[in-house]
Amino acid sequence: MARNVGRIFSGFRCSGSLPFGKTQLKTRCPRLLLRTTPERTVVQALSSIFSHKSRDFSLPNSSWGEEMMRLYNHYSSQSGEAAEGQEDQGEQWTRLPSYNRSLKYATGGVYLSKIIQSKARLFTRNIRDTGAAFEYVLFFRRDKQRCVCIFQAGHLLEGPPGHVHGGAIATMIDTVTGTHASLLSAPVMTANLNINYRSPIPLGSTVLVESTMDKEEGKKTFLSCRVTSTDGSKLHTEAAALFVSINVSHLLRG
Amino acid sequence: MARNVGRIFSGFRCSGSLPFGKTQLKTRCPRLLLRTTPERTVVQALSSIFSHKSRDFSLPNSSWGEEMMRLYNHYSSQSGEAAEGQEDQGEQWTRLPSYNRSLKYATGGVYLSKIIQSKARLFTRNIRDTGAAFEYVLFFRRDKQRCVCIFQAGHLLEGPPGHVHGGAIATMIDTVTGTHASLLSAPVMTANLNINYRSPIPLGSTVLVESTMDKEEGKKTFLSCRVTSTDGSKLHTEAAALFVSINVSHLLRG
Repeated sequence: MARNVGRIFSGFRCSGSLPFGKTQLKTRCPRLLLRTTPERTVVQALSSIFSHKSRDFSLPNSSWGEEMMRLYNHYSSQSGEAAEGQEDQGEQWTRLPSYNRSLKYATGGVYLSKIIQSKARLFTRNIRDTGAAFEYVLFFRRDKQRCVCIFQAGHLLEGPPGHVHGGAIATMIDTVTGTHASLLSAPVMTANLNINYRSPIPLGSTVLVESTMDKEEGKKTFLSCRVTSTDGSKLHTEAAALFVSINVSHLLRG
Repeated sequence: MARNVGRIFSGFRCSGSLPFGKTQLKTRCPRLLLRTTPERTVVQALSSIFSHKSRDFSLPNSSWGEEMMRLYNHYSSQSGEAAEGQEDQGEQWTRLPSYNRSLKYATGGVYLSKIIQSKARLFTRNIRDTGAAFEYVLFFRRDKQRCVCIFQAGHLLEGPPGHVHGGAIATMIDTVTGTHASLLSAPVMTANLNINYRSPIPLGSTVLVESTMDKEEGKKTFLSCRVTSTDGSKLHTEAAALFVSINVSHLLRG
């Protein structure tokens, strides 16, 4: 169950709203309405909120291999960050920051301590030893309704000897499609993942996880996802994902 | 991709065969043919191999809560371990040990260093801090073709605030159905997981993950899986899983 846009607002307090997505951001936080696109708004708001507090796990570190860095630089060179000051026409990739904490409080008098544990960490970012587990960065391109994730699989993700665990691959698919669906229809929860495993992924590999929006029907968002070698020549895994828009009270009810 | 029976043979050397499953065990290692059932054979062989070397993660530790312990004791009281010395008629639950290392070598002159990394750890057992991530134990009952897993979800598995990540749930489903399929048709790889998420699982909860064998068709094994509250009253997740028997060389080819 992915709640990734919610996730990246870890610790964020926004007057009168639960900081779960672009809708609340745009309607309740005028100071954030500096850019034309929701994803740019999100990224800029997060930068100021987290700059001195939390580590952005989607930035390069010393564990990233050559292929990971090459692809990171490739997408970054086409991103809004690289073209600061220009108006985003949706034809750029936007890097999505990534933190390991969830929100702690909602303002407006509602305290979410019931559902929050102070020690809780995002599953995909729960190991601080760089390179050991999930190393990944997501880029989003609004005009093409696509999300792409560069994923380097560390040695703690083993399933079959020397290869990535099917659950770790499912986790990345949930993360990428969930983030994508959140940007389109936040907040969402995973309703279905249908995953076909085609060929195993060797530990230490860098692969691409690409998500495409297929259709929206009411509260439902349907997406497709492919995990491939970085040159696209080898299909490792493909999946269909369904997310449903939810109200935050859904989580409070359990 | 689950390879759980292979996994529990971590470090095991058996003359002339890759130690991947019950078939090899029965045909190549006469000293292991002390019991009538493959799962009993596996458990007994593993006990002697690992007793002084590796931690069996499926044994109770101080992080296990009351519900986890109650269920562990419930299934243990009906297990072969509790009735040592009696012939197993398949009407008992067998606890399956669980280790965090994979095999390092194959004998017969084949060295698998190419696919092995010394630092690699099983994804579900990669955090040694007890109670922080996946705490689980599997029991298998041959006469009913069922596997049941008691799973306590730690605070490092967060997805939606205060709840278990969909990828962590998928990981447990892959693990339980994969272990089950391995006991029936080892060695296997995951081919498909189709997962429906019905209601979120609060962090810290103990739930049951139950796997049932639906049918076998040639190299294919079809299983169903349900994740429920421990009293069975609440359905959290349900899934269909397909595994295919493989040759070890499949992994070597990548």
